Parts: sequence; structure tokens; C-alpha cells
Amino acid sequence: MTATLSTKAFAAKSATEALGPFTIERRQPQADDVLLDIKFCGICHSDLHQARNEWKNSTYPMVPGHEIVGVVKSVGSNVKDFKVGDSVGIGCFVNSCRKCEPCKNGEEQYCKDTAFTYNSSDNGHTTYGGYSTQITVDQKYLLKIPAGLSLDAAAPLLCAGITTYKPLKFWGAGPGKKVAIVGLGGLGHMAVKIAVAMGAEVSVLSRGNAKKEAAKKLGAHNFYATNDTKTMEELAEKFDLIIDTVSAEHDIDALLGTVKIGGTLVLVGVPPEGVKFNAHNLISKRRIFAGSMIGGIAETQEMLDFCAKHNVPADIELIKIQDVNEAYERMEKGDVRYRFVIDCASLN
Amino acid sequence: MTATLSTKAFAAKSATEALGPFTIERRQPQADDVLLDIKFCGICHSDLHQARNEWKNSTYPMVPGHEIVGVVKSVGSNVKDFKVGDSVGIGCFVNSCRKCEPCKNGEEQYCKDTAFTYNSSDNGHTTYGGYSTQITVDQKYLLKIPAGLSLDAAAPLLCAGITTYKPLKFWGAGPGKKVAIVGLGGLGHMAVKIAVAMGAEVSVLSRGNAKKEAAKKLGAHNFYATNDTKTMEELAEKFDLIIDTVSAEHDIDALLGTVKIGGTLVLVGVPPEGVKFNAHNLISKRRIFAGSMIGGIAETQEMLDFCAKHNVPADIELIKIQDVNEAYERMEKGDVRYRFVIDCASLN
Repeated sequence: MTATLSTKAFAAKSATEALGPFTIERRQPQADDVLLDIKFCGICHSDLHQARNEWKNSTYPMVPGHEIVGVVKSVGSNVKDFKVGDSVGIGCFVNSCRKCEPCKNGEEQYCKDTAFTYNSSDNGHTTYGGYSTQITVDQKYLLKIPAGLSLDAAAPLLCAGITTYKPLKFWGAGPGKKVAIVGLGGLGHMAVKIAVAMGAEVSVLSRGNAKKEAAKKLGAHNFYATNDTKTMEELAEKFDLIIDTVSAEHDIDALLGTVKIGGTLVLVGVPPEGVKFNAHNLISKRRIFAGSMIGGIAETQEMLDFCAKHNVPADIELIKIQDVNEAYERMEKGDVRYRFVIDCASLN
Repeated sequence: MTATLSTKAFAAKSATEALGPFTIERRQPQADDVLLDIKFCGICHSDLHQARNEWKNSTYPMVPGHEIVGVVKSVGSNVKDFKVGDSVGIGCFVNSCRKCEPCKNGEEQYCKDTAFTYNSSDNGHTTYGGYSTQITVDQKYLLKIPAGLSLDAAAPLLCAGITTYKPLKFWGAGPGKKVAIVGLGGLGHMAVKIAVAMGAEVSVLSRGNAKKEAAKKLGAHNFYATNDTKTMEELAEKFDLIIDTVSAEHDIDALLGTVKIGGTLVLVGVPPEGVKFNAHNLISKRRIFAGSMIGGIAETQEMLDFCAKHNVPADIELIKIQDVNEAYERMEKGDVRYRFVIDCASLN
């Protein structure tokens, strides 16, 4: 049996209990491993979903957190690209099979054997996430946080950043392109900032006008309220690309109507009731409806480098781990601009 | 007032009456016009929908038919590319604005001012379709039927052919690609033949096994019954591209499950109740859901040339115009392999 490292963490012990202190065992770094001191961990909405077993796939105790930023504490003998003191990050997964087509194509997130960062299994061991003080990870699944990004505001890039960067890049956001972002939460705010940095003309679509000023502050060029029928009519066939971050039921046909001929609507949120639309709205304008899920390791590194170069951190509210349950409650009400990040020093 | 040409036709005089003889006036060919003797006209399912006002946009009397093949009878003074005696065709539209972005991009079918071949308006005049003996058309909207295609079996290419060719080509059907065709009617049978000619490995997905032999006869390499749960499980992530021709409600999530990571499901049929699916099925495999509607003039010519080169006619049942009402009834029961074509000599 490999020796382990006792590590302080916060865990959900069941779907109905508040998160509380819990001790986990991390593996001692092997030849290809890096051990890091976790400095910050972002709180993704999926942490809340899984802590409460809303996706019906939870195992307990669960230590959530897949927006992890830390500093290298020690490295195994095979590790060449990381050294003690480096600023590094871990996103949504910590291992994959490395042999399948998606792995070979740099899309490890679509590997059938992906070990997610928590609520998953890595070579038979339960994975525990970033609401903790240290973590051991294979060097292939570790990212470099470039100089210029502050570590706390970089944490949400590991999930919210790559989730939005990938479809923006894949579907051609850039100069001359009109891009709309639907929903202005953790994902939406990153989508706005990244699309602006890519040089696109960026619009925010939101139900009412409440977030108008906030959207402008993030750099959005335009803001439209989707509950205004006249506005929606004026937006007919306007956008080359929409990134739809909303994970509640909403009017997809109305959004499709604002997509240009041959344009694309990308879903990154999952409305639990399913998505319904009129096929005519795709067919009559050769529109494209796509989905996208995070990104591979190389793409995630590319996104981090892009965000450092263009000075695109997340907008965060830093909290102590002791406030995580209250943060969950506030997230449920949409009361955060735009991402809670845990200062993991508070675990000590 | 321009002189007109009295022309024999068959028309629906209301949504509830059978089609019957009717005389229409075609315009005398102007400088850019071509007058043609109509030889054959395919019967598209949309003829039936519109004759019966099922899309709620019908005007009467209506002469359906947008799969028109004929021979040039006379040409206007500006016409250089067509001469008397040429075999020519007309598809789903006969005019467009010629100035908008789609028109300039060769996607005239997406122009806001497209004059459809029937049940539409062209410069203020009602358009009448191909269930008639002659038609006048602007040379820009006329197609050449290449030598090697028999005229009757070429007619359905003008709608069913281009409707399937366009998305097959756009989404990359070809050698090394696994393509599935859902539904084996007028559109589906053309999709199979064209995809096979493009060099793809072609599978037909059909509810039960009834069409298995027919699919093989058309050249399909594989046949799968979608009502068999085990089969559908075995098909998980198999196809690069699915062309879904079904216009009734069906299980889209089951089909999405058979699409590879990054693969595409294209809708060319419009289920009237709308389309419902689980967003997770797009997101978790970066799948693409697309729509496609016929094709532009240049693309339609390209398709005709392709079908001539690869010997891909439609499979048809030739009828007299007097049997059109019975043909509609048989189409409603799916009792046609695979397209009725009217021998327009029967109008005389």
C-alpha cells in the first residue's frame, strides 16, 4: 500500500447535510506526480448539484471543487516541466485512458474513462476535489498558471473559462463576428470577457434589464432584454454565434430566431427538462445547434495563456471555507458576481 | 400588359377538393427568359401538404410541382447558355432578390424574397408549378439536365436530390465516413444513393425490418432497426453523420446516441410537433444538430452533374396526371418506391 498524506478538507457527508470539516488521504507523489499546496478553489454550480445528488450519481463523503489553483510543493522523479514553487492549476479531470481517440486528439474530457476531479474514480481510488489544502496529480493533467493572472481570479478559468473559451474559438468568435451570450452567471460573465478579448462584437441577452449595467462593465457592447418581443424581432438573424449558458427551461426558438443563416447556437448549460424547438427554425436558415463540454488539457493551457495575455481574470468574491454553505445558498438565488472562490488558507 | 400563353395544368381549387384540370397563363418569354415544354414533374410530399393547406399558407387555385424537367422551346434575346432542344430542369424556386447576402453567396433559397415555384409570388404574379405543360422561367433559375440521366428519373433530383446532397456534402460524407440515413422515403432513398456514390459507408435506420431488403437494393451497406434497444446500444457513437428525413415525431435522443464525438445529426424533415432532446446528449459528446433546406442554383447544378457522373437517378413510379389524387392517397400511406413522377404528356 502506498503511503498517504493526511489532508484537511471540507466534505458533504450526504445529499442533505451541510458541508463540514473532513480529513482525506492523498497519495504520496509517484514518479509522474506533482504535489501541490492548494491556494484557491472556485465554486462551480456543479459542485452544488453533486453535493446534493441532483444528478443522481453522487457518492459520499464528497469533497467538491474542480477549479483548483496552487503552488507546487514537490515533484516526482519523471517530472520535468514543473518545479517547486510554480503556480499551477487543476480543472475538471485528473486522469483519462490516454489511448482512445479523444485522448489522442487532445479531447480527454470525452474519454470514456476520464477520472473527474471529484465524485469519480481514478485507478480505483475515489477522487476528492479542491475544497482542501493539498492534492497529488499526474503531471499530464496539471496546468501552468501564467504570470500576470492573480491566483484567486484564475481559479474559475479552469472550468468556467474553458467551458466558454472552447466553443467561442471552435465556432469562430473574432473580429467581424457578432456574438451573443445568454445568461450572465459564472459561465456567462467569462464568455463575455473572453469573446470581447477575441475581438468579437458582444451582446448579452438577459430576461430583463436588471443586468444591463453589469454587462456593460464586463465589456459587452450591447445588451438586450429577451422578455421584450419587439427587441427580439429586431434581433432577427443578427448573431453569428450564441453561447447559451442557461441551465433552466427557456425559449430556444426565440434564440434561434436571432441566429444568422448558417450561424450557431451552442448550449453549455443543461436545462433538466430537456430542450424543445421547432425544426423549421434550424432547417429554414441552415442553422446549427451544438453542445460543448469543458476542453482538453492542451486547450485549457491555451485558454489560460490567452486569458493572461489579454488580462481576462474571472470576477470573484473570495470567501473562507467556513462560509461555503452560505455561498451555496446565495448561488441558488443567483446572488454572486460572478464566482465564489475559496481561500484555502482558511482550512488550516 | 405582357401577352400570355394559355397552358394546361392540374390545380387544387381549395384545401378540400381533389386536383383537377385548370388553365393557367404563363408569361411570354422576355429577354432573359426561357420557355420550356414540361416533360415530367415529380410529386414531393410538400405538394400534398400545400394542396391541403396543412402549412396554413396556401392560396388557390394552386398548381403544385417543383421537380420539373422539360425541353427548351424558345429563348429570349439575352439567353446564351440555353438553346432550343436542351434538357433542363426547375427546382423549388424561380426567382430571388439577387442582391442580398444569401443570393450573393449562392444560397438563394435563404433569400427573404425567394419566389417559390408554386404557391408563391414572383414580381406580383402568382407562381404555378410543374403539373402543367409549359413554363417560362428566368435563365438564372434554370438548370441543365446532363446527358446520361433519363428525364423522368431526374425530376426528383430537383428537390429530393439537392435536399440530401447539400447536407451530405457540407457535413463531409465521403470515404472513411460512416453515414446513417433515417427514414427511407423520397428523401431517404436519394440520401442513400448519393451517400453511397460519395464513397461513405452507409447505414439505413428504420423503425422495423420491413425495409431491410429495399435498403440493400439501394446500395446501403448496413441496415438497423431502431425499435431494437440492443441494436441501438451497439450503435452508440458509431456515425459521423446522420441525415434524418423523418417528418413525424420520433426519438431524437436515441439517434443522437449513435453519433460520434463531434459528429452531426442533420434534420431535413420537419416533425410538426417540434423536436425535443436532452441537452446532455449534445454537450457530453460535442455533437452537432443542424438543419438544411434544399440548395442554391449552383449547388443544384453541381448535384445534377454529380448524379449524372455517378449514375444516380431517383427510383420512380411514372403516373398520368389523371392519377395524381390517387397518388397523394398512396403517398400518405408511404406506398411508393420512392417517388411518383407525372408524365406531363398526359395533360394534353
